[in-house]
Amino acid sequence: METTGHLRELGLGTGKKARLHRILYRHGLANGTALFLPYDQGLEHGPRDFFANPAAGDPRYITRLAVEGGFNGIAIQIGLAEKFYWDYAGEVPLILKLNGKTDIPSDAQALSPLHASVADAVRLGADAVGYTLYVGTPALDQDFAQLRQVRADAQQLGMPLIVWAYPRGAAIEAKGGKDSFYAVDYAARTASELGADVVKVNFPHPEKRAAVPPAYDRDFSSQEAVDAVVRSANRTLVLISGGERAGDDAMLEKARESMEAGATGLIFGRNVWQREHDESLRFVARLREVLAKYPST
Amino acid sequence: METTGHLRELGLGTGKKARLHRILYRHGLANGTALFLPYDQGLEHGPRDFFANPAAGDPRYITRLAVEGGFNGIAIQIGLAEKFYWDYAGEVPLILKLNGKTDIPSDAQALSPLHASVADAVRLGADAVGYTLYVGTPALDQDFAQLRQVRADAQQLGMPLIVWAYPRGAAIEAKGGKDSFYAVDYAARTASELGADVVKVNFPHPEKRAAVPPAYDRDFSSQEAVDAVVRSANRTLVLISGGERAGDDAMLEKARESMEAGATGLIFGRNVWQREHDESLRFVARLREVLAKYPST
Amino acid sequence: METTGHLRELGLGTGKKARLHRILYRHGLANGTALFLPYDQGLEHGPRDFFANPAAGDPRYITRLAVEGGFNGIAIQIGLAEKFYWDYAGEVPLILKLNGKTDIPSDAQALSPLHASVADAVRLGADAVGYTLYVGTPALDQDFAQLRQVRADAQQLGMPLIVWAYPRGAAIEAKGGKDSFYAVDYAARTASELGADVVKVNFPHPEKRAAVPPAYDRDFSSQEAVDAVVRSANRTLVLISGGERAGDDAMLEKARESMEAGATGLIFGRNVWQREHDESLRFVARLREVLAKYPST
Amino acid sequence: METTGHLRELGLGTGKKARLHRILYRHGLANGTALFLPYDQGLEHGPRDFFANPAAGDPRYITRLAVEGGFNGIAIQIGLAEKFYWDYAGEVPLILKLNGKTDIPSDAQALSPLHASVADAVRLGADAVGYTLYVGTPALDQDFAQLRQVRADAQQLGMPLIVWAYPRGAAIEAKGGKDSFYAVDYAARTASELGADVVKVNFPHPEKRAAVPPAYDRDFSSQEAVDAVVRSANRTLVLISGGERAGDDAMLEKARESMEAGATGLIFGRNVWQREHDESLRFVARLREVLAKYPST
Amino acid sequence: METTGHLRELGLGTGKKARLHRILYRHGLANGTALFLPYDQGLEHGPRDFFANPAAGDPRYITRLAVEGGFNGIAIQIGLAEKFYWDYAGEVPLILKLNGKTDIPSDAQALSPLHASVADAVRLGADAVGYTLYVGTPALDQDFAQLRQVRADAQQLGMPLIVWAYPRGAAIEAKGGKDSFYAVDYAARTASELGADVVKVNFPHPEKRAAVPPAYDRDFSSQEAVDAVVRSANRTLVLISGGERAGDDAMLEKARESMEAGATGLIFGRNVWQREHDESLRFVARLREVLAKYPST
Repeated sequence: METTGHLRELGLGTGKKARLHRILYRHGLANGTALFLPYDQGLEHGPRDFFANPAAGDPRYITRLAVEGGFNGIAIQIGLAEKFYWDYAGEVPLILKLNGKTDIPSDAQALSPLHASVADAVRLGADAVGYTLYVGTPALDQDFAQLRQVRADAQQLGMPLIVWAYPRGAAIEAKGGKDSFYAVDYAARTASELGADVVKVNFPHPEKRAAVPPAYDRDFSSQEAVDAVVRSANRTLVLISGGERAGDDAMLEKARESMEAGATGLIFGRNVWQREHDESLRFVARLREVLAKYPST
Repeated sequence: METTGHLRELGLGTGKKARLHRILYRHGLANGTALFLPYDQGLEHGPRDFFANPAAGDPRYITRLAVEGGFNGIAIQIGLAEKFYWDYAGEVPLILKLNGKTDIPSDAQALSPLHASVADAVRLGADAVGYTLYVGTPALDQDFAQLRQVRADAQQLGMPLIVWAYPRGAAIEAKGGKDSFYAVDYAARTASELGADVVKVNFPHPEKRAAVPPAYDRDFSSQEAVDAVVRSANRTLVLISGGERAGDDAMLEKARESMEAGATGLIFGRNVWQREHDESLRFVARLREVLAKYPST
Repeated sequence: METTGHLRELGLGTGKKARLHRILYRHGLANGTALFLPYDQGLEHGPRDFFANPAAGDPRYITRLAVEGGFNGIAIQIGLAEKFYWDYAGEVPLILKLNGKTDIPSDAQALSPLHASVADAVRLGADAVGYTLYVGTPALDQDFAQLRQVRADAQQLGMPLIVWAYPRGAAIEAKGGKDSFYAVDYAARTASELGADVVKVNFPHPEKRAAVPPAYDRDFSSQEAVDAVVRSANRTLVLISGGERAGDDAMLEKARESMEAGATGLIFGRNVWQREHDESLRFVARLREVLAKYPST
Repeated sequence: METTGHLRELGLGTGKKARLHRILYRHGLANGTALFLPYDQGLEHGPRDFFANPAAGDPRYITRLAVEGGFNGIAIQIGLAEKFYWDYAGEVPLILKLNGKTDIPSDAQALSPLHASVADAVRLGADAVGYTLYVGTPALDQDFAQLRQVRADAQQLGMPLIVWAYPRGAAIEAKGGKDSFYAVDYAARTASELGADVVKVNFPHPEKRAAVPPAYDRDFSSQEAVDAVVRSANRTLVLISGGERAGDDAMLEKARESMEAGATGLIFGRNVWQREHDESLRFVARLREVLAKYPST
Repeated sequence: METTGHLRELGLGTGKKARLHRILYRHGLANGTALFLPYDQGLEHGPRDFFANPAAGDPRYITRLAVEGGFNGIAIQIGLAEKFYWDYAGEVPLILKLNGKTDIPSDAQALSPLHASVADAVRLGADAVGYTLYVGTPALDQDFAQLRQVRADAQQLGMPLIVWAYPRGAAIEAKGGKDSFYAVDYAARTASELGADVVKVNFPHPEKRAAVPPAYDRDFSSQEAVDAVVRSANRTLVLISGGERAGDDAMLEKARESMEAGATGLIFGRNVWQREHDESLRFVARLREVLAKYPST
């Protein structure tokens, strides 16, 4: 009974707790960990991301993969959610991504405009919403204003808010780039301070020390860095992103370190679906082996 | 894959399909059938219903029972949902009952006033809302106006609408009473015509023929009657109510006939919790045995 | 070109004209006449209306029949429209019935409460809305208030408004009943005065003269009566209702007289579907033969 | 029966399905293909576009041409819809174009401001709305905000949303221009991700490889490119635009390749009406011959 | 630390918990019990209630008494709150009573209309709002509608909701009257089901058995009755009302039994202020002695 000990301690209202319980304890490994499948790259990068495995350009293929792979959720934009989630509605949780942009203009003034609402997410039966926050962008006034509305709506409707916390913009570039321990740590904390229930960050790179503030210009192990990021997020659950496709063993080691640090789970897209179907499922099985070692009860 | 063949044929939008899938295929027997635990009797009849088993007066006891018994949902009013669902949020689906009344005044002009909204249900992470419609009441203008708003909100927010379709009022009494085959059949159809996704009716009594319209004043078997009721509801799923506590074997036979007719499930309250805890679970186990024979895939 | 000469003379805005053109010139005989299939009897009378042909209790059967029979529209309530129209969306025009009631309480204070909106009709792709007005009811304040809102919304959204103009209530009974020439004539005019684009009336019975006002207490032929009713409706198009099932030849003669009088078409439900499938289509074919003789160009 | 097999698989609600069925199966060739007549050039380019055939400057001439030519729809701005659609209301489907701009200022920060609403489209009896999205523009925050509102209104009112997906802006120019395979492919996907039901794109030019991202800097045939664009749009139906007037045989070859790729149809304006009346109809007849070879049932 | 163990178990949001903590742990005995001073009798009964102690007619006198007596709160209507609470704002918690009525018309159709809002309470710095619900009244549709709005506003603004749950109306009179164990028990439960955070009830009289339902027509001790009432309220805190002035020892015995049953506190008005100032404080001291024996940590 009352197996969701962990969720009881996060200061969540009833609807957010119900929906996070569903995601974490009734899907995937059902052990309090999470493996999410993000599929917004068609908008964020364009169809070129599907050239490696053309089948992956079909949202139906990907939705089915999320079901087959036992994912805890699939994160997609409104257009695909409207047309493709119905087929598998309820079989895998939907995370509706509320904002997004193309990568055509430069990121110097990065802003990801809203194109859907929390009410859309409710209507589609989603279990969470996703919002991309560009930490460090000069356009933070618009970014914070958007997030403020999303957070208030999510609070009102009991919808968990997952923030994609991405360091971005000219100033970030000038202070060590978007992948430094400094930038990722600051991004995790910013999401937590602004009201995220879950934060998605990239794995921090403490070795990228050029131009970072002095406090981060020291020797940190990879594990120390990710430990600190999870601490910075405090009661905001942490998801570590896979990012661009890389070597499997390196990815799995990052996954292990992340879970060891107390992350709740992983969000891997291109590393999963930029390969042939059965190979995707085999890689997913390896990720699940990692998650199985870190139950949260 | 795509196990929800049945749900695909009901004309449901994405959110309603997602939430019904959760209720029918990820809780209870997860075979497309449903067993619901209604717990609104404290308001509808007062605490006297708990005298047979005082523990049942505690909403925490009942919510836990719903989890232990593997129910597909618990139907409660807003006050209990606000204070008790958090403990088990997501472990058993919540059906938020949106209207209700005491049984203190007479039912001649029966109307069950709204005391909560579909937005409350969303906020609490509910998977369906419940509305009591008094079919045949002289207060139908207020009743239909309330239901209209609830239906529109439920459509807008993707929330399944379960209608408790109860024949009631002086005209019903004059035409054979609330339990006749005529009254129950008409109630099921009315809910369907007005937009219910699921309808809860009492078991029809074709032998109660006094004063019913001629078409129903003929010999019908119990099975023929419940068959007709399910047909009248067409794409609206049917739940058969247990009503007042009665003999177990009689209840189980009614359950069997209902499922044979194509009902989706059962909604049994007093027959379950007006007995001691372990006995409740034993009775639930017998109900589940019935449901297990009627999977819907 | 510009074949819709008739519609050009009715004072219609663009949207109403577009939708009526679709109904009258792109469906059915496409000659400006109309044959509608009403299917609200499950609510208005209860499932007993389906006992004569149980297949007719299934809204899918009826919707398909509307397509097969080449009807100009099917008139159904919101619940059936939500769940069944999708299957044939666009293949036969939808007339969304916005109000309705059961026949359980008495009609002395008849009122048909709203349960859907013009916006629902737009959302479902309907080509018209239907509203039942009880001409003569003591509850006219609520009835007119409802109609006023529907008319204003229909005007705003370009949606043709079809009024089911039914004489009803104690005063009507006291003045000759609901089928007299007096009552039907008054009903047609009332709908026209209150803003109907189309009015559905029952065939007038000039021979029912008991207690009608003196002006109607004279010898009128059946043709004279229906001529007058169509004149009373002026630019409001007239549909003649079949009502309860009766002899085919009598119905066809009424249909012929109605069209001769200038009615736009017929709305036949029980006379069509209270018989076996192929027999239904044969009767529809005879109705179409009548309509084919009265093209409106 | 149920001839709209193709439309059943697109994740459409009832109203959108009804209206698309009307466009695709009850107008034009009524075989699931579409030929649209766009007539927004008077705003987008100014009256100079009518110098080649002055009659084409008269919206009445063009609307009649759409009827005569058996088009599946005419796409016009609000001013012309208000004043000219009434004449032929319902005879050819109206696609109300909701935004537009002049070509007087530069396109570096391209944005097409809204000048009409989905509610206007409903009022006028339109069967779809059109929105121009400038994919890649620096003004994407305003563009996405506008589209978000249009998409939400269209969803709410059951109105199909056709997105004119045009790569535009300084960054597009710097990455190969608006007609490259890269740009068109990205535009089609962006429309799909943001919720278009139908997307209008220009024919892709895989030979324009200068400065495009590496994935597109390879040899692709014209057919391979258009195949990929249709795949990128997935369940969003694709219309290929004729663009500026060009040689008939080249246009017809593009049309053929587009349909071979799985496009739903063509949207040809200047190529149609920048010539004398009868010649326009002869060219339309040749386009219809192409469409007739690609029925979608 | 975190001494508010009791409040942690009630399913309260942050604002409600903060305000109840203030009332229960920073005022009065600061031990989790409560003693409230209600002062709405000037509206409910008229000035005659002040004849016994004319000073009590002055709201300033009463407010000062609430501070002097160490009450946990004073419950007053909007007019007095606007003009008198300023003087002692923050020194004693304000419970703003949101509805009320005179006792001039009969109570057969009892309804207490709203005259202030939860937003008024926020503006005035109140720590709770009060609402009178007439359980059993024929006017339940209006009563429930009012309470629904108050509950939703209170939830939205984090304001504790205290329901004065009073059995009232002709049907109550016919079933044993407003003070029976049956009536009080049902009232407590109704408040809990409809969302009260705190419920005020009169002390139940199990000896008033005439005409009550059979379940209550048995021998119950006074203690058994009040025990049951507190259980029926479950997580809704219970306040026992003093009602009309009666003998001090009898009142204190009721108070003791109430606290023994698990009530949170007492709400005594006329028994306090219908006597001279110092005598009032002496009686309050005796009530506090009772409360001191039932700390809730």
